[in-house]
Amino acid sequence: MMNAGTVSNPAPARTRGVSAQDMPYFRDCWYVADWSDSVAADTMVGRTIAEEPVLLYRKGDGAIVAMADRCCHRLAPLSLGAIEDGHIRCGYHGAKFATTGACVEFPGIAKVPASFCIKTYPVVERHRWIWVWVGDPQKADPALIPDAGMNDSPDMVVRQGEMTHEVNHILVSDNLLDFSHLAYVHPKSFGAGADWADTRATVTELPRGVRVERWLLDQPPWPFLPQTMRIDIFNTYDYLWPGVLILAGRNYPAGTADRFDGKLPPQEHLLSMGAACQAVTPVDARTTRYLFASITPRADATEEVVQRRHAVTTAAFEEDKVMLHAQQRIIDLSPGEKMMPMAHDRATVLFRRQLAEQSAA
Amino acid sequence: MMNAGTVSNPAPARTRGVSAQDMPYFRDCWYVADWSDSVAADTMVGRTIAEEPVLLYRKGDGAIVAMADRCCHRLAPLSLGAIEDGHIRCGYHGAKFATTGACVEFPGIAKVPASFCIKTYPVVERHRWIWVWVGDPQKADPALIPDAGMNDSPDMVVRQGEMTHEVNHILVSDNLLDFSHLAYVHPKSFGAGADWADTRATVTELPRGVRVERWLLDQPPWPFLPQTMRIDIFNTYDYLWPGVLILAGRNYPAGTADRFDGKLPPQEHLLSMGAACQAVTPVDARTTRYLFASITPRADATEEVVQRRHAVTTAAFEEDKVMLHAQQRIIDLSPGEKMMPMAHDRATVLFRRQLAEQSAA
Amino acid sequence: MMNAGTVSNPAPARTRGVSAQDMPYFRDCWYVADWSDSVAADTMVGRTIAEEPVLLYRKGDGAIVAMADRCCHRLAPLSLGAIEDGHIRCGYHGAKFATTGACVEFPGIAKVPASFCIKTYPVVERHRWIWVWVGDPQKADPALIPDAGMNDSPDMVVRQGEMTHEVNHILVSDNLLDFSHLAYVHPKSFGAGADWADTRATVTELPRGVRVERWLLDQPPWPFLPQTMRIDIFNTYDYLWPGVLILAGRNYPAGTADRFDGKLPPQEHLLSMGAACQAVTPVDARTTRYLFASITPRADATEEVVQRRHAVTTAAFEEDKVMLHAQQRIIDLSPGEKMMPMAHDRATVLFRRQLAEQSAA
Repeated sequence: MMNAGTVSNPAPARTRGVSAQDMPYFRDCWYVADWSDSVAADTMVGRTIAEEPVLLYRKGDGAIVAMADRCCHRLAPLSLGAIEDGHIRCGYHGAKFATTGACVEFPGIAKVPASFCIKTYPVVERHRWIWVWVGDPQKADPALIPDAGMNDSPDMVVRQGEMTHEVNHILVSDNLLDFSHLAYVHPKSFGAGADWADTRATVTELPRGVRVERWLLDQPPWPFLPQTMRIDIFNTYDYLWPGVLILAGRNYPAGTADRFDGKLPPQEHLLSMGAACQAVTPVDARTTRYLFASITPRADATEEVVQRRHAVTTAAFEEDKVMLHAQQRIIDLSPGEKMMPMAHDRATVLFRRQLAEQSAA
Repeated sequence: MMNAGTVSNPAPARTRGVSAQDMPYFRDCWYVADWSDSVAADTMVGRTIAEEPVLLYRKGDGAIVAMADRCCHRLAPLSLGAIEDGHIRCGYHGAKFATTGACVEFPGIAKVPASFCIKTYPVVERHRWIWVWVGDPQKADPALIPDAGMNDSPDMVVRQGEMTHEVNHILVSDNLLDFSHLAYVHPKSFGAGADWADTRATVTELPRGVRVERWLLDQPPWPFLPQTMRIDIFNTYDYLWPGVLILAGRNYPAGTADRFDGKLPPQEHLLSMGAACQAVTPVDARTTRYLFASITPRADATEEVVQRRHAVTTAAFEEDKVMLHAQQRIIDLSPGEKMMPMAHDRATVLFRRQLAEQSAA
Repeated sequence: MMNAGTVSNPAPARTRGVSAQDMPYFRDCWYVADWSDSVAADTMVGRTIAEEPVLLYRKGDGAIVAMADRCCHRLAPLSLGAIEDGHIRCGYHGAKFATTGACVEFPGIAKVPASFCIKTYPVVERHRWIWVWVGDPQKADPALIPDAGMNDSPDMVVRQGEMTHEVNHILVSDNLLDFSHLAYVHPKSFGAGADWADTRATVTELPRGVRVERWLLDQPPWPFLPQTMRIDIFNTYDYLWPGVLILAGRNYPAGTADRFDGKLPPQEHLLSMGAACQAVTPVDARTTRYLFASITPRADATEEVVQRRHAVTTAAFEEDKVMLHAQQRIIDLSPGEKMMPMAHDRATVLFRRQLAEQSAA
């Protein structure tokens, strides 16, 4: 049982390829800091976004405020303090700040210098998510917020989910940018077949992200849908800075795609639809929050379909978690090793390039 | 719900302030290595002080010995070994050392070189504490040991406590040097009111530390004392290298301070007294032992008062622990961020300056 | 109780000695990757050897294959994938590799470049162990595999054991290279007496390791043998790159050694024999696998002796574990501190020198 002679592949010299190292964080973009309903009226929550501690605070009138979760006095987190009359009281030595970040009182101190203040962040609450702008506040244009309107559309029934991956954020984005993994990571949960890997998606570069579209023909129905007939699936999603996925999946009777020559068939042919909004928010270099919504059109939203879809989705993302953690471990053992992208990686390559260029700028 | 326009405070440029980085350790000083009763006759204990492994060993005659807890042979800890006839036997390969650190036997070796020996530390046992001098042994003057005499005064009843904080030692010292935090961290446990932060302490620099004194007028009684009348409190403590707090709190009927013009009133006006001796002993850059004694004059020391005082004190220090750990986390996320000391910080600023100067020397 | 005056040993200047720092890994050698029976037919196992992720895969015909446990596509571990028709299918995006490392299929990709392949390692299965060559495959000579023939000798009854130490591999090798520690670490488990430290072994340098031999005279019988008479023990072992111990212990009636003038007595005087094969396989700088076999000649192998020997051996190695972990902690606290080898350390010094020279070459 000796195989010492079978060494046909000494370690190949890798002069090309994609670095497996950690990527920097996007700046000048809207991060999903949390679900709206995670911050109740007159409460606050501390979160860390791209290594910045951020305090989310909801005023009595419902408006949300984001400021550094770090008192400028001794760097204690303000989120351990209290809300007093709409102001934030540090729980260590009592400095009191307005929602503008200005210090309005320091116990025992007559005059506090103007430089003693807290950095605030542009913040917008939209579509069930709290969006915080990390970067140059002058550039914080709400028009740049990805459209997660399906999250709170009256036509949709939504279930929220969340998990934390102990990996660099870029690995989670890589995962979401190449759905060929469905065939190998999610055959059990999503019932995904080989076509997810055997076919090629159409990838289009967007100003702040990429669009990925594909037809999957003559598939078994999704496990959370009635198992009546085989279907054609038109799957399309945008993946937008800093890591927001907006997906719609349209299911038609098998054969419909060919009948319409791969164009989007008229609405009356639609059997059912599913959607997903997901956000990948880095905490630090080895911690990434993953917020996801599974979305069912109200017309199809029996309690069973809604529950099944969410259960299947959550199970699938636990499958991703196992793979991502294992992949990160191998990467950390292999500092010099590069990834070798294939044609399926067109979206991951584009998105990584956008991030590298934004960081270099 | 859009606040993107309210950015009144972009991150202020911080050109002044106090570094939030870890501080070095004091050298040339007496560290509290342990409680006396932690080392029984003819036993030994391994402790780490400022990253130095130290073996505490009590001889049969009761005398304490401190030496490196590191055999010079293979660097195994001697504390895993045994005591044989008043000598220390390494538990790995059997090197045997006298309490002077000299090797008196190495199994199978006829002649051991004189350089094969263990470093010993000057050590003094006093006031229930084992004090170890880390630094130049030529300078180890027992007169420099802080006076923790209340720890074993026959007039006092003492309860010992201990906890470990996973933070840099300087944060624990900062905490103890500015009691304005009592108003915000300890309103529940100590029942401390806003006056702790609204008033200013008198801070005096000492040759090896600082003295902090203040009157608090017309206060509710401490929660562990009879709730009979409002009181004036004269709170005074020395905070001495490398982190030893010696505190006395004197309680008088409300109005006494004014009657005596803020001077120490004659003894007959004293209602009650409390005291505390505490030691902050760094283990490493992120681990700090905190030893504390709650002290009640024997005359007032009903079992209930003694127990209540200790329970309240322990609860309060758990409140500090939560704040300190959260503060350390924020500091570690904010490498460039500086602290902005206020007037209350005079004692923290002086003590940090003394440490920086000692380290530079 | 003042000992401040007894400082007879200020920290000695250490100009000579052995560095306590981590050692590099051996290259160009056969590492024990696992027990043969850990990899069943048509299964695979991921292991890490000297920071290299290695996939062990047994083909249907029983032959073992070793290749990098890292898909060259996105660096996911192949061990999370599947075996398909004797090939390895990556579980992330479906790349399929032959046991030669060549990619035979990438779903959806017509032509895969030849450089897209997995590094394979020379691997030999011998004597119950799977040996993997880490280093230059051109030099992978099976003749360099240490002779662990006792592991599967028909004359022997073998029990397998395994543990993981959270220390640098060199500390485990040091431990095994100096059995004087038996007298102090293993008096309870092995019943080892002072003679293990009081006598000196004969150490011979080998081309790839060291040989250690010694007589122990008039000893109590090993605790797992019949307690009938005192014995002379002839203990001999080779310790071979990268950390493989091959040991035989021969027990004679007390007095036999002198009768034969320290030479190996004729076979008929042998009372009983024991043997051990052990492998120290580094995972990373602070993790080391330790695989061991306790071996009893079939003639003596009552179930009780076999079980007792293995239980005693395992208990003894748990004693080592406590010491090794404590030693590593002290070393990590003492970056500048050096070890001071004694005459007993001749084998540790030779083996460390061989490793340093191999690394420098």
